[in-house]
Amino acid sequence: MKLEQIETPAALIDVARMQKNIARMQACMNTLGVAFRPHVKTTKCIDVVRAQIAAGARGITVSTLKEAEAFFAAGIHDILYAVSMAPSKLPRALALRRQGCDLKLVVDNPNAASALAAFGDQHGETFEVWIEVDTDGHRSGITPEEDTLLEVGRILHENGVKVGGVMTHAGSSYELDTPAALAALAEQERAGCVRAAQRLREAGIACPAVSVGSTPTALAAAQLNGVTEVRAGVYVLFDLVMHNVGVCALDDIALSVLATVIGHQADKGWAILDAGWMAMSRDRGTSKQSHDFGYGQPCLLNGTLLPGYVVSGANQEHGILSSTEAGTQVDDIVERFPIGMKLRILPNHACATGAQFPEYHAVAPDGNSVEWRRFHGW
Amino acid sequence: MKLEQIETPAALIDVARMQKNIARMQACMNTLGVAFRPHVKTTKCIDVVRAQIAAGARGITVSTLKEAEAFFAAGIHDILYAVSMAPSKLPRALALRRQGCDLKLVVDNPNAASALAAFGDQHGETFEVWIEVDTDGHRSGITPEEDTLLEVGRILHENGVKVGGVMTHAGSSYELDTPAALAALAEQERAGCVRAAQRLREAGIACPAVSVGSTPTALAAAQLNGVTEVRAGVYVLFDLVMHNVGVCALDDIALSVLATVIGHQADKGWAILDAGWMAMSRDRGTSKQSHDFGYGQPCLLNGTLLPGYVVSGANQEHGILSSTEAGTQVDDIVERFPIGMKLRILPNHACATGAQFPEYHAVAPDGNSVEWRRFHGW
Repeated sequence: MKLEQIETPAALIDVARMQKNIARMQACMNTLGVAFRPHVKTTKCIDVVRAQIAAGARGITVSTLKEAEAFFAAGIHDILYAVSMAPSKLPRALALRRQGCDLKLVVDNPNAASALAAFGDQHGETFEVWIEVDTDGHRSGITPEEDTLLEVGRILHENGVKVGGVMTHAGSSYELDTPAALAALAEQERAGCVRAAQRLREAGIACPAVSVGSTPTALAAAQLNGVTEVRAGVYVLFDLVMHNVGVCALDDIALSVLATVIGHQADKGWAILDAGWMAMSRDRGTSKQSHDFGYGQPCLLNGTLLPGYVVSGANQEHGILSSTEAGTQVDDIVERFPIGMKLRILPNHACATGAQFPEYHAVAPDGNSVEWRRFHGW
Repeated sequence: MKLEQIETPAALIDVARMQKNIARMQACMNTLGVAFRPHVKTTKCIDVVRAQIAAGARGITVSTLKEAEAFFAAGIHDILYAVSMAPSKLPRALALRRQGCDLKLVVDNPNAASALAAFGDQHGETFEVWIEVDTDGHRSGITPEEDTLLEVGRILHENGVKVGGVMTHAGSSYELDTPAALAALAEQERAGCVRAAQRLREAGIACPAVSVGSTPTALAAAQLNGVTEVRAGVYVLFDLVMHNVGVCALDDIALSVLATVIGHQADKGWAILDAGWMAMSRDRGTSKQSHDFGYGQPCLLNGTLLPGYVVSGANQEHGILSSTEAGTQVDDIVERFPIGMKLRILPNHACATGAQFPEYHAVAPDGNSVEWRRFHGW
């Protein structure tokens, strides 16, 4: 299907940009001498993940068991479920392991570790668990020097669970915006995770994998000594938040929302689009950053940026496009953006915007597109 | 399935609360002497809409043609597509009309009206169109005294399109929070829409329907003289934004997200939940209101509110539950919210949160639930 024929709103992936982003990250990992395990929560799309694996990725990271099931069904065996395991979800994880999935689980506390060990013992299953390490205080995990780290390691190790490694995610990198700060956080993430592995090993627990990552720290790391693999997700498409963090150019952003102009409020300088927050998502990640892009950055259908314009407001199925410059001749809006004109809107956050759509339209450089399904739910 | 058995995260509808909300709105409309046309964009769920129709609703409002197709396939014929018609979507609307759907379209500008009239003429189809009126300046529509109103009316009327009515949506009601302000806006919405109909009729254009509504104005209107029908959507479930607007109590909110405690950061006073922004949505509508509920208000599994706690932060699949009161003994968090505990989280915005899930679990007063499918996409 030609780009012009796609009904709006629609989520477009610029395949050339996506391939460039994949190649850039994989080259970076190859230089650093670590394996790369992409986080597939960004796209939940087998076509995208196949491109990541073709470029050299080894295994995947998932944020839900539904992702694990869907990608295992598509032939991917090496899967890290990177959210601390709820005891009630163990039967579903067991079912995947029994089908031959090399599913690795995560815990960060003694109670979850005990429940997991007891469940494994009860069902005769040797689970593999990676312990989550907190290296930046932004979410979950055990800090490297805590006693709890060894306590959890021992609960697992002494009760028939394989401690496969440690993993951390320096998600606070999204709040930074200078290369120096990102490099410093990447080193903090690396050092903390390596230190946690060292403590476990000194306690007699093997801990082969040392897994770190977020898109900004992965691209900013100067060296990753002691790390075995890196995880990152959003780099595959990038978005306006990542642009503000400083790790991509606007024309690296591979995801956009195709929208149509359906009305105007000329006296206010507004063009009304058929892409509101249901299409863009409610994510306003750039609102706290150096450059607030509203609900998105408009581009022409061919991808040319339209600086000076922004999607400044959104209802469920209505977006409001307006000028960012006071004193613009507001009547221009009707001539510049006539009824029926199609635009591409770059989103704040690729993970959130993609999730609003059942499919991507993967657009080749010649303007032809194919549909790539994605799934949602848990 | 019992509530305790539902995997988390999950979207729950408290059926008794939903039925109470439906009965309340329908009784209000009956008292005001107007028909009621619910906006189904909130739930996109045939089970919910059947309950609205059983209570007396006449026809439905949709925000996408996909909703129109899905509800027409489920046996509903009288459908208003309440977003200004993009010319490129006319073939899809025509297909629905040809199948017998009494689909009404909306325009608010001469170009869309001309395109629609030309397309109808070309295909021998008499479309019915309602003209969108702007009564509060918050989005799209033509203000009642504008020349454009009659221009659009004549383009339609003189070119074989039936002008079925006028419609308006005072969406700025979401920004108010006193009964007096809501009643005043309801009267402004009514008067403006009735005035637009009057001008069209004086110009010889029949304009039988006069359709107004938003949940807050629908519940605040003192009288609706000249109005034939009201539209509202979110009232069916309500949410924290509507609570802050002042049109529902917290225990009227029929939608919640079921979540499990999966970890803690005891020194920070955090419990980590398996419901992050993917489950709650990124909607933070209460952030600009009198009471900021973060990403949601926690309740016990039985629905009992937990005042003093809030979901204060969210990653994609992690929510952070914390106390709103400084000086709380933070270590309490581990004892009060143990690993594996299930909670219900009331959301900011029912339309946005529901859209994150492929299904609702409709929970009866006895704790038994059934699955109600919803759809997404366009």
